[in-house]
Amino acid sequence: MPSVSIKGREMPASPIRKLTPYADKAKREGKHVYHLNIGQPDIETPQIMLDAIRNIGFKVWAYTPSEGTASYRDKLSGYYNKLGYNILPEDILVTNGGSEAITIAMQACINPDEEIIIPEPFYANYNGFARSAGIVVKPILSYIDDGFALPAISSFEELITEKTKAIAICNPNNPTGYLYSRKELEALRDLCLKHDLFLLADEAYREFCYDGSAFVSPMHLEGLEQHVVVLDTVSKRYSACGARLGCLVTKNSELWAAALKFAQARLSPPAVAQLAAEAAIDTPQSYFDAVKAEYTARRDILVAGLNKIDGVYCPIPGGAFYVVARLPIDDSDRFCQWMLEHFSHENQTVMMAPATGFYSSTNAGKDEVRLAYVLNINDLEKSLICLEKGLAKYPGKKI
Amino acid sequence: MPSVSIKGREMPASPIRKLTPYADKAKREGKHVYHLNIGQPDIETPQIMLDAIRNIGFKVWAYTPSEGTASYRDKLSGYYNKLGYNILPEDILVTNGGSEAITIAMQACINPDEEIIIPEPFYANYNGFARSAGIVVKPILSYIDDGFALPAISSFEELITEKTKAIAICNPNNPTGYLYSRKELEALRDLCLKHDLFLLADEAYREFCYDGSAFVSPMHLEGLEQHVVVLDTVSKRYSACGARLGCLVTKNSELWAAALKFAQARLSPPAVAQLAAEAAIDTPQSYFDAVKAEYTARRDILVAGLNKIDGVYCPIPGGAFYVVARLPIDDSDRFCQWMLEHFSHENQTVMMAPATGFYSSTNAGKDEVRLAYVLNINDLEKSLICLEKGLAKYPGKKI
Repeated sequence: MPSVSIKGREMPASPIRKLTPYADKAKREGKHVYHLNIGQPDIETPQIMLDAIRNIGFKVWAYTPSEGTASYRDKLSGYYNKLGYNILPEDILVTNGGSEAITIAMQACINPDEEIIIPEPFYANYNGFARSAGIVVKPILSYIDDGFALPAISSFEELITEKTKAIAICNPNNPTGYLYSRKELEALRDLCLKHDLFLLADEAYREFCYDGSAFVSPMHLEGLEQHVVVLDTVSKRYSACGARLGCLVTKNSELWAAALKFAQARLSPPAVAQLAAEAAIDTPQSYFDAVKAEYTARRDILVAGLNKIDGVYCPIPGGAFYVVARLPIDDSDRFCQWMLEHFSHENQTVMMAPATGFYSSTNAGKDEVRLAYVLNINDLEKSLICLEKGLAKYPGKKI
Repeated sequence: MPSVSIKGREMPASPIRKLTPYADKAKREGKHVYHLNIGQPDIETPQIMLDAIRNIGFKVWAYTPSEGTASYRDKLSGYYNKLGYNILPEDILVTNGGSEAITIAMQACINPDEEIIIPEPFYANYNGFARSAGIVVKPILSYIDDGFALPAISSFEELITEKTKAIAICNPNNPTGYLYSRKELEALRDLCLKHDLFLLADEAYREFCYDGSAFVSPMHLEGLEQHVVVLDTVSKRYSACGARLGCLVTKNSELWAAALKFAQARLSPPAVAQLAAEAAIDTPQSYFDAVKAEYTARRDILVAGLNKIDGVYCPIPGGAFYVVARLPIDDSDRFCQWMLEHFSHENQTVMMAPATGFYSSTNAGKDEVRLAYVLNINDLEKSLICLEKGLAKYPGKKI
């Protein structure tokens, strides 16, 4: 038998999925499991988007252009320009989900063995995408006691070498929910200009900013036009994760042309998703207002509930639909597994993502978990009770 | 401005698209361009598949499991087992198009700097996928005078080193249309067993075998169970290129598990496409019979027409919907561009893919072009007239 030996690109286990076998076992034992581990919203997809699927008119389900259809890119540029990005349809490259936007952007900016700096905790799959392209991720710690704010610019400077090609941020942040301020982004701009680095900005959660905070993108910053690559997806904006439709946006035409070659190799993004996402751009503001109100209420209940539990600390995040909380525990992997395997309260338990999987630095995140507030308020309240009862019983509790 | 310098993974220009600017210019000048350059069939998608899109019932367009939905994998295994593959639903990993099946299979089998042997001419994007993963492609020439049959096993043996991890074939072949015989596949089996190599079998054109020839897959060969990875797509089978839905199939569970990690990093294949492809498995045989009759008629007209032109030679391919023809020309890139830029007959011209892009060996394919018979018979006949008239006038004609 040929050996499956791919040490050169071994993929890290997914922090949100590695406990799935334990969750499955818990369910087989009849427990109800509240899934706070994964960012699959329960919010309904806009009707206008679902109608576009039902109303397809083609007879041949054909390839679209590799860069996406002209009509979708045209309409999508209008969406970005309403936000003040000042882009052209030609600046958009449509992708197979946000995942492919990240992969293609990394590949088009960074050679094998070159480096990208990313504040951590960060979206775990950045590691996988980088590793499978031979790119080295250099993490910089952000801290829960700062609410996971941008690390000091000096700590970036310490990591920058001749091999550094890019910095990546996720804003609002997955997993922390942190919303970067204009001041932080301006500091990053100055840094990128000084060292001539690309700035990859993953804005999957752009629509989810709370407390009246304005969303600021590197696209809004003057002078950085040739350095910014926005990575986007319709997954969260329209609760359309199964569409697998994203895009990258850059005003750097040389970079766009390099990215197009990767896109041409895989021929085409999905056709029906483009029709649906084009229609979805007309989603009424009332849809987003209602979604934002719902998430705000959930966040408030979750954060308040967490901070009421003895020994638990959770900063109030400004965006996305995740929080990272510090728990009085020895080991978040062990605790999250124990909650599924050995705990139940009224035959219920909670599945969380151990924060260790979102850090590269050794031992970081061992007392932190990520919670996605993608369940309704009633379920969130029950989850909080489970967590409190679980912590009280957990053998590895720290006092 | 940061430099876009990705020499480490520079992508080759797509042979089917690099002349697109010239085709666009020809159209702006009012010429009608017959597109024989690209494998986008004009055949209608089965009604049952389109109906499944129109009948979606979900309210949240959610992620599916990374490996594909249980119901699709279950039904799809039935499709394969009707063909005698003898597989389980658990052997299937659903992907974003056949493209991703190829990428993931390569990444899961082969480390950076290791090698894969592929008979050429081959599907040009194999090169791009390999290069962006740091994998080295070792080509072996097949010859038009043999009808592009499998090269001698001794020529594979000459290329096998400690770095060789896999052999890839496309059967029926893109770009040549060659259909591998059971005898050829058995020789490959013995070779793979002898050197413990994976055999990646791209079977995108499985449904298109002509003249009553049976399709044979490495999945049919005893003893090779742990070595074979079938790469597949619904694109051609159901004329559903825009679905972006493929899969890989392997009975090697260790390899499947390695592939799953790459699939988990990109979260999910497209959801609507899986619903549609599941429904499409019930497409009646009459659909395939009609399509096969249509392609056979087109092939016969195209091949006969080509061989009637002075100095042109085209073998009769046993499958797919491509031919590679030898033309009496100095340079296929120059000729194909000239046909778009400087030639027209009754205000019409033909776009073809220069075969050079399907070879890695220097100078190979300079007098060959690939033609896709994806147009109706009337258009094919007009294309043949254009080609004959063009060859008569082309300044670089060889006599």
